[in-house]
Amino acid sequence: MRFDIITVLPGLLESPFAHSILQRAQKKGIAEIVVHNLRDYSANKHKTVDDYPYGGGSGMVMMIEPFAACIEKLKSERNYDEVIFMTPDGVTFNQQIANQLSVRENIIILCGHYKGIDQRVRDLYVTREISIGDYVLSGGELPAAVLVDAIVRLIPGVLSDETSALSDSFQGELLDAPVYTRPADWNGHKVPDILLSGNTPEIEKWRFEQSLERTKQRRPDLLSE
Amino acid sequence: MRFDIITVLPGLLESPFAHSILQRAQKKGIAEIVVHNLRDYSANKHKTVDDYPYGGGSGMVMMIEPFAACIEKLKSERNYDEVIFMTPDGVTFNQQIANQLSVRENIIILCGHYKGIDQRVRDLYVTREISIGDYVLSGGELPAAVLVDAIVRLIPGVLSDETSALSDSFQGELLDAPVYTRPADWNGHKVPDILLSGNTPEIEKWRFEQSLERTKQRRPDLLSE
Repeated sequence: MRFDIITVLPGLLESPFAHSILQRAQKKGIAEIVVHNLRDYSANKHKTVDDYPYGGGSGMVMMIEPFAACIEKLKSERNYDEVIFMTPDGVTFNQQIANQLSVRENIIILCGHYKGIDQRVRDLYVTREISIGDYVLSGGELPAAVLVDAIVRLIPGVLSDETSALSDSFQGELLDAPVYTRPADWNGHKVPDILLSGNTPEIEKWRFEQSLERTKQRRPDLLSE
Repeated sequence: MRFDIITVLPGLLESPFAHSILQRAQKKGIAEIVVHNLRDYSANKHKTVDDYPYGGGSGMVMMIEPFAACIEKLKSERNYDEVIFMTPDGVTFNQQIANQLSVRENIIILCGHYKGIDQRVRDLYVTREISIGDYVLSGGELPAAVLVDAIVRLIPGVLSDETSALSDSFQGELLDAPVYTRPADWNGHKVPDILLSGNTPEIEKWRFEQSLERTKQRRPDLLSE
């Protein structure tokens, strides 16, 4: 699976893609992540990619031309399943969307900045607009990294222990039960006896009850769906 | 404002904190972001920070001892307003929470990994559990970066144009209107005439209508709140 990420801050994405699961997926050849500097596609000598908004107002708007040049070049090289724009007014990202996207082959991701991007980029090129949540960030780079991380870990072969991905919160309907590890007694704060009992059926029952209780308390909306 | 982030992957956070608004906020002395390697607080010679879960099951659990050692050290140096654990079963992050947190002084952020962290860390130290959305990620590092970015940009003096932060989606009740910049005609795709009219009251009216329409179509839930 290949991701092409178009950004004015390619350096910002360096370390997230060079560690942990994203690094491993690239080394194994399961995922390819290519970051493109939008400024390389600017036609003017100052390499500007933004300009004042028509109609006035604060903030700068990212121009269509550099995006169009970069996207057209990529599309001339291979077929893309999606051109995704990371934006706070997009569809809210969730695990179902991550699952859907994890079976695609090639995805372009556009990172916005400043006051937004020229609406014509959205109208002419973008196939999906995705928000990672209801909060304002400085740009689309961290959202792009979040999106790629959520997708890549679902591709078979990326995680060493596949049951681990399947038992995560949101893959089932319930939040995870509390987990504990050594020491069994830390300054008088003890692990629940049941987890030390070795009685697997009772442990599974306890975990289910804890999951249900935590979901009821924290996210009743997950139960009513 | 100071952030202390505790993680097993300090390198992953290098580039997000070294660019754009987070870099500027640190250079101006408005925000201080300190990343701590959890392994430095491991008491054993292999610097392990995780162990098998009590009761069996897949995945590893992060131990209480390294977190406790790091948090206790930080707390001996200054007072903290919050110890936040980034976790998919936490309260869903939104702009209201970002606003609240932006007036705090010192915040510790814990990044989870593997199958989760020993429940006693959560019970004994954590004051808030925050999720950035309903999807599973490889660890709490990207969520921590998202949280810090959303908070820091709200601190007065960080953004050059303060009205720009105030007019973002989610600071008002409505999504942003479409924006356009030069050229007015790109391969036959034109900017709406109204934005070229110079008639500011009519432009404001058009923008409000567009915002309302976009919000109705995409996020009716924002209007019913």
